[in-house]
This record gives sequence, structure tokens and C-alpha cells, in this order.
Amino acid sequence: MNLKQEILNGNPRAIAKAISLVENDSVKAQSLMKEIFPQTGGSLIIGITGAPGSGKSTLVDQLITRLSEDQKKIGVIAVDPSSPFSGGAIMGDRIRMMRHSENPDVFIRSMATRGHLGGLTKATGEAISIMEASGKGVILIETVGVGQDEVEVVKMADVILVVLIPGAGDDIQAFKAGIMEIADIFVINKADSPDADKLERQLHAMLDLGVKDRPVPEIVRTIATQGEGIEELYKKTLGLSMVQEGDSRTIRKKRLVEWMLKDIINAKISRSVQRQVRPKEFASFVEKIYLRKIDPYSVADQILTRLKGH
Amino acid sequence: MNLKQEILNGNPRAIAKAISLVENDSVKAQSLMKEIFPQTGGSLIIGITGAPGSGKSTLVDQLITRLSEDQKKIGVIAVDPSSPFSGGAIMGDRIRMMRHSENPDVFIRSMATRGHLGGLTKATGEAISIMEASGKGVILIETVGVGQDEVEVVKMADVILVVLIPGAGDDIQAFKAGIMEIADIFVINKADSPDADKLERQLHAMLDLGVKDRPVPEIVRTIATQGEGIEELYKKTLGLSMVQEGDSRTIRKKRLVEWMLKDIINAKISRSVQRQVRPKEFASFVEKIYLRKIDPYSVADQILTRLKGH
Repeated sequence: MNLKQEILNGNPRAIAKAISLVENDSVKAQSLMKEIFPQTGGSLIIGITGAPGSGKSTLVDQLITRLSEDQKKIGVIAVDPSSPFSGGAIMGDRIRMMRHSENPDVFIRSMATRGHLGGLTKATGEAISIMEASGKGVILIETVGVGQDEVEVVKMADVILVVLIPGAGDDIQAFKAGIMEIADIFVINKADSPDADKLERQLHAMLDLGVKDRPVPEIVRTIATQGEGIEELYKKTLGLSMVQEGDSRTIRKKRLVEWMLKDIINAKISRSVQRQVRPKEFASFVEKIYLRKIDPYSVADQILTRLKGH
Repeated sequence: MNLKQEILNGNPRAIAKAISLVENDSVKAQSLMKEIFPQTGGSLIIGITGAPGSGKSTLVDQLITRLSEDQKKIGVIAVDPSSPFSGGAIMGDRIRMMRHSENPDVFIRSMATRGHLGGLTKATGEAISIMEASGKGVILIETVGVGQDEVEVVKMADVILVVLIPGAGDDIQAFKAGIMEIADIFVINKADSPDADKLERQLHAMLDLGVKDRPVPEIVRTIATQGEGIEELYKKTLGLSMVQEGDSRTIRKKRLVEWMLKDIINAKISRSVQRQVRPKEFASFVEKIYLRKIDPYSVADQILTRLKGH
């Protein structure tokens, strides 16, 4: 099949194949990405992140249902933590979400946090592009809010939802470092818990301390398992995507382009280094460095000089 | 001052300054690293990792005390999570550990997980080298066992201790993905807890499933706050460092060299790209890509061609 054309037609097998090519950072992936690139950049990207057990996957499940009612074509990228703290609970929720796979307008893809040759952000960014080219108007990216890589991934979104649950102890403090400052909407899930008010007060207190260079995040309460609050969350999410057009959304989109370009440059250079220095020679460099016969900085210089000669 | 000479003399201010240079990935850092490189590679590196609240810092504190009794010169690198799930408790333990800073034979350095120009592993690897050159015979690296970066960092160690606590729920399962397969010693801390036996049984059950390409990890019980089990942990740790010489330890050391070389190559290339493409031009590339006037793959090719011409 003509992969490009099949992607543009929205063929799920073609989309899946293209994402696999991208995950392996193959040369073929690159020429495909070049071809589809003009068809990318038009979708609304929603990032959903939160600690394990916060009910993210259930929220995503509900948002898919709601988006489907509006006849949206939906792409979902679920970044599965191959890092510690994954926990088995995620898988159950994922399975529930997968029921949407039978809907031809929904394409769900799970991506592992590890093992992408060009890095997770590059692979995810390219998967987003493929889904955009395939006509998915809305793309949901779900990540567990752990680790720098996953924060980088969720930053690709136009609207970022951070899911918190009441009574999870130092929740706010724990999340502060990486996630709190990128939220557009805080979702207080399991809002029927007695500690929900306390969490909302803490959030307000935190937000009152000031939010830099962007609108103050909204707070929405949900009980995802019962579908409560989903309508409000849905409206606010779409609403934000409108307001931000031309504004902070544009800035984010450009930043995404910048990362993508840097990732692509790095991936290309790595390949070129691999071509110049065969594994055997590389191993002998390593041996010499290990024996302290030569330092790695000089070896690096030597390899780069060679790279430039070709 | 002559920085190299002062490092070799073990001057703490010089060590601190050199690590800062390395963290900023400065050109000066590189020539310094070249100079001290022959003096590196000789120390025993102990990695300690575990979930927040497992008592890692207290264990490190106790190990420092025990190592000091043996007149060891000690370097400590505490990787502070600037990622989510940090939690405030860590800081208190860190402060306790800092009391050792007054001991001239102990050098403690805190490093953030984020914001290293050449990456965390490169910065940590170079900090280890600096401490080695300064005559620290034993170097402890402490990280919270979350996120891929932190797993990579702890893999630099010769002996890896994974700290677990009883009754922390799905502890074993949660850690499986990243940390469990690299442990040389499992430390069951807070071993006076009623669930300690259960955790030990779970560990044995897991280890019985088979350990690939390396000796079966040991299990040691401790109550770090009371100093219990520290002597056994200390002996086993030193013991392991002996047994592994010439064996899996050598393999690890070589792998570390390999990473280091790759990191150095990547850092050099990034610098050279930055020299070739000034920020203004880079921004204009980003703008054109954003507007879909050109694709990032072609821009990357163009930049690399230019790089090779120089």
C-alpha cells in the first residue's frame, strides 16, 4: 500500500504501521514524515497527567465518549510507564479504554516510555503528526506524571489537564516541581471524597501565589467513574483551546517545533556517528579509555573531525 | 589556583568548583576533565536507590559514619529529584546527612535531576571522576528510584543497593520495571515492621524466578534509624565490590565508559550545531516549520551538511 495515502485516508493499520516505523526511528519513517508534514499541525492536542491511581484513564475514557458524541475523530496516545511506580492498576483502566478501539473514528496507541531510539518526545511528537495527518481532529496524550520525559511529552499538548485526588497526602507539594506549573486545568477527581474541599483550598492558595506568563489555571471537580463533571471539563477544555489560539498556544506550538527540530538533528547525527565508527572500533576506543590510555574527550574530538570530513 | 592540582590535593572548594563547571558543561570543564582523567576510575562506587520515605538518606548517613571509622575518604552525590514525587521528607534527611560535611574526609554534593546542559548522567559521571581524582576512595550515589534518568545514574555504581520498606503495598511490583533487575543487595529497611517477613518472602519468590547474567542479589535487613544491620550491610557491600572485580564489575565499568563517550560526543556536537546556527537563524527555521513552509527533516539535513563543511 501507499503508506502516505493510506494515512491520509485514516486507515488504522497504516497509522499503526507508521507509528511503529517512527518508534524504531527508521530511515523509512523519516521520508514518510517529510511527505505528510504539510498535513500536520492542525489538531487540538489535550494532555492528561496525574499520579497513578488518580483516575486519569477513566477520565480519558469519558472524554473519548464525549468527543465521539460530537462526531470528533480522536487519536489517543497512552504513554505506559516502563519506569518504576507503574503499578498494575493502570492496565485495568487501559483495557476499559480499549473498548473505544472498535469505533473506527478512535485510534488508540500505547507507547512505552523507554526504548525509543530517537527518544520518547521525538517518537511521541511524530506519532502526533501521523495522527494529525490521518485526520484526527483531537488527540489525547495520557501520561503518568512521573519523570522528566513524561513531563516533556505532556508539554506537547495545547491544553494540559493535571488530575489530582483528595487525601493523597502531599499531593500538591509532590507535584509542584514538574507538573503544577504547566497545568491549564486542575481536575479534582474523586470529588465526592471528604477531603475534596481541602484540596481545592490548597490549589487556590497555591495559585494565589501567582502564575507566571499565562492565564490562571481553572479548577474542575469530577467523579470520573460516574461521569460527573465530565461535561464541564469537556467545555472548559475546548474553551481554553479557543482562547489560547494566537496566544500562549502559538508559543507552545512553536516550542514543540523547536524540540522536534533539535531531536531530529540529534537523531541524524547519532546515525552519522554510527556510520563513521563501526561497533568494533567503538569498542576498542572504550577499552583504551577504560585502561586510561586515552581520555574520552580526545576520542570524541577525533570522531567529530572524521565526521566533518565526510 | 591551579584547579587540577587543588583537586588532586583534595581541596573541597576546588572539587565544588570543578563540579559546577561540569554542571554547566563549560569548555573549561572539558580541558580540566582531560587533565584529571588519568587519575580517575579507581574508587568504589556505591549506588543507593529506593522510593521516597524508604530511609535511603538515613542509610547513607550511617554508611558514611561506618566508612569514616575505617578512615575512608568519602564522596557523596545526592541526586535531588526536581521531578514530581519528590516530597518534603527528603530534605530533612539530607540536612542530617550534611553534618558529615564538617569532616574534611567527606565531600557531599547535591545535584538536581534537571537542567544539566549535557544531561544528568554526563554531569554525574564527571562529578564521580572529579571525586575520584580528589582521592575519595568510596563514592556514594543516592537517588530516588523514579524515572529513567535516575536509574541510569545509579547504574554507574559498582554495587547497587535497592532500599525497600515493608507494607508499602505493591512495592515490589512497582519497582520491577527499572530498579529490581539492577540490585546487588536488597535492603529491607524498617525491618522491625510486622510486614518485613512478608516482603522478604516476596523478594525470595521473585529472585527464585531467576536472575540473568549476574550473581543472585543478597538481602539485608536494617533499621537505619537505630543503626541496626548497618555493619552487615557494610561488610556485604565491600565484599561484593571484591568478588566482582574482573567480572561483572568490569563489564559495568566499561559500559560506563561507553555512555560517557557517547554523552561527550553528543555534547560536542550540540555545541558545534549552536556555533553553526545562530539563535536568530534557528528561530527563523522554527517559524518556517511552524508555518509548514518547510519540514524539519530537510532543515536538519541542511544544518548537518553545513556542519560537515566546517
